[in-house]
Amino acid sequence: MAMMKAAVFVEPGRIVLEDKPIPEIGPLDALIKVTTTTICGTDVHILKGEYPVARGLTVGHEPVGVIHRLGSAVQGYREGQRVIAGAITPSGWSNACQCGCGSQDGAGTAHGWKPLGGWKFGNTIDGCQAEYLRVPDAMNNLAPVPDGLSDEQVLMCPDILSTGFAGAERAGIRIGDTVAVFAQGPIGLCASAGARLSGATTVIGVDRLPGRLEIARRMGADYVIDASRCDPVEEIVRLTGGRGVDVAIEALGTQATFEAALRVLRPGGTLSSLGVYSSDLVLPLGPFAAGLGDHQILTSLCPGGKERMRRLMDVVASGRIDLGPMVTHRFRLDEIEQAYELFANQRDGVLKVAITP
Amino acid sequence: MAMMKAAVFVEPGRIVLEDKPIPEIGPLDALIKVTTTTICGTDVHILKGEYPVARGLTVGHEPVGVIHRLGSAVQGYREGQRVIAGAITPSGWSNACQCGCGSQDGAGTAHGWKPLGGWKFGNTIDGCQAEYLRVPDAMNNLAPVPDGLSDEQVLMCPDILSTGFAGAERAGIRIGDTVAVFAQGPIGLCASAGARLSGATTVIGVDRLPGRLEIARRMGADYVIDASRCDPVEEIVRLTGGRGVDVAIEALGTQATFEAALRVLRPGGTLSSLGVYSSDLVLPLGPFAAGLGDHQILTSLCPGGKERMRRLMDVVASGRIDLGPMVTHRFRLDEIEQAYELFANQRDGVLKVAITP
Amino acid sequence: MAMMKAAVFVEPGRIVLEDKPIPEIGPLDALIKVTTTTICGTDVHILKGEYPVARGLTVGHEPVGVIHRLGSAVQGYREGQRVIAGAITPSGWSNACQCGCGSQDGAGTAHGWKPLGGWKFGNTIDGCQAEYLRVPDAMNNLAPVPDGLSDEQVLMCPDILSTGFAGAERAGIRIGDTVAVFAQGPIGLCASAGARLSGATTVIGVDRLPGRLEIARRMGADYVIDASRCDPVEEIVRLTGGRGVDVAIEALGTQATFEAALRVLRPGGTLSSLGVYSSDLVLPLGPFAAGLGDHQILTSLCPGGKERMRRLMDVVASGRIDLGPMVTHRFRLDEIEQAYELFANQRDGVLKVAITP
Amino acid sequence: MAMMKAAVFVEPGRIVLEDKPIPEIGPLDALIKVTTTTICGTDVHILKGEYPVARGLTVGHEPVGVIHRLGSAVQGYREGQRVIAGAITPSGWSNACQCGCGSQDGAGTAHGWKPLGGWKFGNTIDGCQAEYLRVPDAMNNLAPVPDGLSDEQVLMCPDILSTGFAGAERAGIRIGDTVAVFAQGPIGLCASAGARLSGATTVIGVDRLPGRLEIARRMGADYVIDASRCDPVEEIVRLTGGRGVDVAIEALGTQATFEAALRVLRPGGTLSSLGVYSSDLVLPLGPFAAGLGDHQILTSLCPGGKERMRRLMDVVASGRIDLGPMVTHRFRLDEIEQAYELFANQRDGVLKVAITP
Repeated sequence: MAMMKAAVFVEPGRIVLEDKPIPEIGPLDALIKVTTTTICGTDVHILKGEYPVARGLTVGHEPVGVIHRLGSAVQGYREGQRVIAGAITPSGWSNACQCGCGSQDGAGTAHGWKPLGGWKFGNTIDGCQAEYLRVPDAMNNLAPVPDGLSDEQVLMCPDILSTGFAGAERAGIRIGDTVAVFAQGPIGLCASAGARLSGATTVIGVDRLPGRLEIARRMGADYVIDASRCDPVEEIVRLTGGRGVDVAIEALGTQATFEAALRVLRPGGTLSSLGVYSSDLVLPLGPFAAGLGDHQILTSLCPGGKERMRRLMDVVASGRIDLGPMVTHRFRLDEIEQAYELFANQRDGVLKVAITP
Repeated sequence: MAMMKAAVFVEPGRIVLEDKPIPEIGPLDALIKVTTTTICGTDVHILKGEYPVARGLTVGHEPVGVIHRLGSAVQGYREGQRVIAGAITPSGWSNACQCGCGSQDGAGTAHGWKPLGGWKFGNTIDGCQAEYLRVPDAMNNLAPVPDGLSDEQVLMCPDILSTGFAGAERAGIRIGDTVAVFAQGPIGLCASAGARLSGATTVIGVDRLPGRLEIARRMGADYVIDASRCDPVEEIVRLTGGRGVDVAIEALGTQATFEAALRVLRPGGTLSSLGVYSSDLVLPLGPFAAGLGDHQILTSLCPGGKERMRRLMDVVASGRIDLGPMVTHRFRLDEIEQAYELFANQRDGVLKVAITP
Repeated sequence: MAMMKAAVFVEPGRIVLEDKPIPEIGPLDALIKVTTTTICGTDVHILKGEYPVARGLTVGHEPVGVIHRLGSAVQGYREGQRVIAGAITPSGWSNACQCGCGSQDGAGTAHGWKPLGGWKFGNTIDGCQAEYLRVPDAMNNLAPVPDGLSDEQVLMCPDILSTGFAGAERAGIRIGDTVAVFAQGPIGLCASAGARLSGATTVIGVDRLPGRLEIARRMGADYVIDASRCDPVEEIVRLTGGRGVDVAIEALGTQATFEAALRVLRPGGTLSSLGVYSSDLVLPLGPFAAGLGDHQILTSLCPGGKERMRRLMDVVASGRIDLGPMVTHRFRLDEIEQAYELFANQRDGVLKVAITP
Repeated sequence: MAMMKAAVFVEPGRIVLEDKPIPEIGPLDALIKVTTTTICGTDVHILKGEYPVARGLTVGHEPVGVIHRLGSAVQGYREGQRVIAGAITPSGWSNACQCGCGSQDGAGTAHGWKPLGGWKFGNTIDGCQAEYLRVPDAMNNLAPVPDGLSDEQVLMCPDILSTGFAGAERAGIRIGDTVAVFAQGPIGLCASAGARLSGATTVIGVDRLPGRLEIARRMGADYVIDASRCDPVEEIVRLTGGRGVDVAIEALGTQATFEAALRVLRPGGTLSSLGVYSSDLVLPLGPFAAGLGDHQILTSLCPGGKERMRRLMDVVASGRIDLGPMVTHRFRLDEIEQAYELFANQRDGVLKVAITP
């Protein structure tokens, strides 16, 4: 049995590089030789045991690679082709998918819906921090990388860019909108860029790290607010002449940022939430206008599928966005434990790391 | 100075009938001789002091009447015409109105938005539990009553029907949806009817009063659940084969109903909230899918304006809905204190009362 | 080789019942034993040679049947299960499908889009006027028939109901809208019903056959207009007090009905077109307001997929619509040539025929 | 009676500068002292007699000015304030306005809708190529110009920018879309910019004048096609790898551009039409997919109202768009006949002229 290296969840606090068999594939699958991948904040939740996965599972959900083998029923691709797959790999054929909600893909359930069901890599099946990756429903999920784009240029497409943009897209941003984005980590940065790309005239980026605010400016924020030095709610109310923002995007996953996002909304505004929360949230009565504010509160899980990936790579290819500043560190797969150590502790100004098997 | 009778808020616990001058009108206003009005749950909040208004304010926001006098700049109407005006009377010319959000009308503010600003009657200006009513921005708000419709037939249009339908409309209900409506008071009943009218195939009404569930069936619910006898969340999960509902409408304004509405949503579902809450709300982590459920949580304040009223009266005229069962008691204006007593204590199976000056 | 009976296109003017091999299936397919099917107006176009298909092709695209055999990669179904499949069978995994546009499914093309590509049965692959039918991408397309619904009750779901409802759905009908539907053949009747189900307060059905107008009333039209006895444009302008309709649905496919639909639109109104046209259309300058009328003109091809079918069967099961009156004649498969003769010539008040192999 | 200079339509071929009384104003109006205005292609249609207006009417619908006097019922403004008003001045209170369709404002009609009814300046009431302008429904229409923006910087907001952006907005452009814009006159240029601002990844500008294509590149087009040197349909099909564009915007008003726009659409694509047509249009059967292509054809008349103007000026202030290159010539009001002569004959590379009374 052919073996490969893979980063495996062992127990809370331990993700280690192990030898595992190269995955076998079924008729609808593809086997990808991973060329570049990365670590996500969600992987850190897994590492810490905050998000439970099976022991022995290979982690990671952001793959760039080359098609190594195709399932017997897969058509339209060829071995050797450079591809990415989304972090979310919807089947395409569940009821949820047919409603345009592939992230909640319930393929295999009686009714066709499953919470977070589209998220499989490194969650319910082996992920991509490994030399090889089995991609399910390959025809729905493999997106060829256009010539001229490097691995690192498309490395954010599977998750970070798809999620960040979703925060802007789902909010229905219109030309002339004012948008505040709470937290400027990788996803918040992409949300800021997505807000600007969608027509927002005023994009306000909020964070507590000056380095991130600096990158926020380069990626599309018109104003940045250092929340460690002032109250961002007051500052945004002032900036908008008391009106508030049309759209507030939450990109961290805490009560404080969620609540600040609600407080800066104009009446009738939209709160688009991207963060992964770890406890109950409170909707305070006043900012929630006792339920009479014509508000919308929307949550989004990263959209997947090959058409999504095609579009995102097209955005990169068009030069509308430069993801270059986001890859701050590079590691080989056999250094992945060090990469986790750096990333989990947010050391050395890390935003994203590139891992190359 | 010509005088009239009006129900006036004096202090918490006391709304009394008093003599007040008949209102004077400005160039954009109209003076309406009220022929029928009613009491709303919100008026009871005012009575109890839970929603503060100025002492001496005339309460009430659901007017049916006859045009008595028109402001000098008002065109397109004639004295003697039967009309209604919405509970919400947007100016038409604020920035909020131009964004289709007249309920948050900020006419007169620097930027044009104000939380709940469209709600004026019995809130920021004198209301309609009186013999005469001044209607601001009359050309935007007066809707002629079609011949053949009685006062009682259109009495629910200004608030109850507009609000209830909004719960269904805002949720974007599609043909084939399954919808649960939590609480079957007047607004919940109209939400159930609105869900059915919008194409919902399965409408599930929830309440704790068998009498209301009986009316729910007549107004459009396919299934009714008595929450005093079983857990409605379990029952709805069972009814939907484990899938949950596409849309849940909250029509009471409590943590329990809000949370139940969230718990019965399928992944990617929509919670449309109509209730007026009186304390902070909690979004429990699990049902909220940690923010990854692709949920929408939407709140609505009653839509107003003459076009809205025209449409609602058209629905009544078409026979699509029969509001007859909702008026359970009738009082003269000079009996309004008894009407409050009955309505505030929900005695004698009261749903809505008709008050005739 | 096992043989079956199938209605086959031979040449313009001739569809005949022939013996053909029972289809073989691939890993993603299912083989259905057809229990009931019907003839569509499109089949008559094929018969007449107006819509070209390959000689020898089995025609028909509206199947009700029983699963006879499942492809090796198909999961979630069992042999013997009663199912329908839509007239349109999207792959689920093309780029078009991922954009919610499965009717233009381009599975197999370089970019993933193909005009009308979702329509396969009786068009690009063998259809269902036969004893057996191969269903491609079975997991995306097979919808189990709920217990308690007969074949005839669900026979309209694959095409007629899906198409007719799409005319109403795509137009974004809102509660209180006025809708005119031009032509009350099977699709127009379902469009009228769909308009009412979507909240239209005034549904106006137009046709030239009194029998169809009679059924239109039963299926949801508030008013009917016999276009053989008056000018329907004038009549609708009169009925709407000069305003016109919010939505006009074209359900025949002629210049006259298309143009009438445009002429009765209010400014800013929506023309939703379902007809299959056979020549260029003219947009007359005046009714088109020289391009300044804020109009929407939308076309729809029948939506398919198992979730669509599930929803439509749910509508039938809920009793919201009674398709009973639409099946006017019944034939055995070996009488199909007579069925074509009757249906193509619209004899004996035929609306739809049921064909049972 | 105080007099002013005004450009007046006398007869086809003659717009002349005349002395007219300064307009009187009603309670809802404002009198503006015009500081800058311009000439629109529509004015040229009026000049040529192709669009009929009353003899003696002052033409022009793109005003920048200073508030000179306010109607007795107007609040929220002060004399001396710099303002613009849209080319379209919706009342705010008609049924059409309440449906978000102010361009078809039917204020004063029985039902509240009127084709093109929002377009008043230089059409149904005196326009702004004059020293003074009466603005109706001033509270709905006057938008203060932010400090720091010059007259010329906001001169395109009332019509060109509002119309051009509307072509992109109405089409629902999403991040990653490919958009073709047919004709790169002032409106087409703004449509190209609007498409890019809305997230289009690939914007293709088509025209026959190299100078305009050069400006198109500066304003947002990724590719430009000189239709005098190749077939733009072929070229766009080639550029998109045979797929076609998601959205095609027509910005000229001819059969040739409309038809080309339809031909380059992918299945399910959207044709957003901005042009003013002067004859019937033909929808050719093939590109229209016989009505089965899931196409959308949308027309837009310039949106107006003060909130629209506020948003557009915000876009200019944000630096997202530079309208500088569009004003190519400058004239005093008393030279307006020469300005018409130049503009109507498209001499000297003119795009837009600035006229200063």
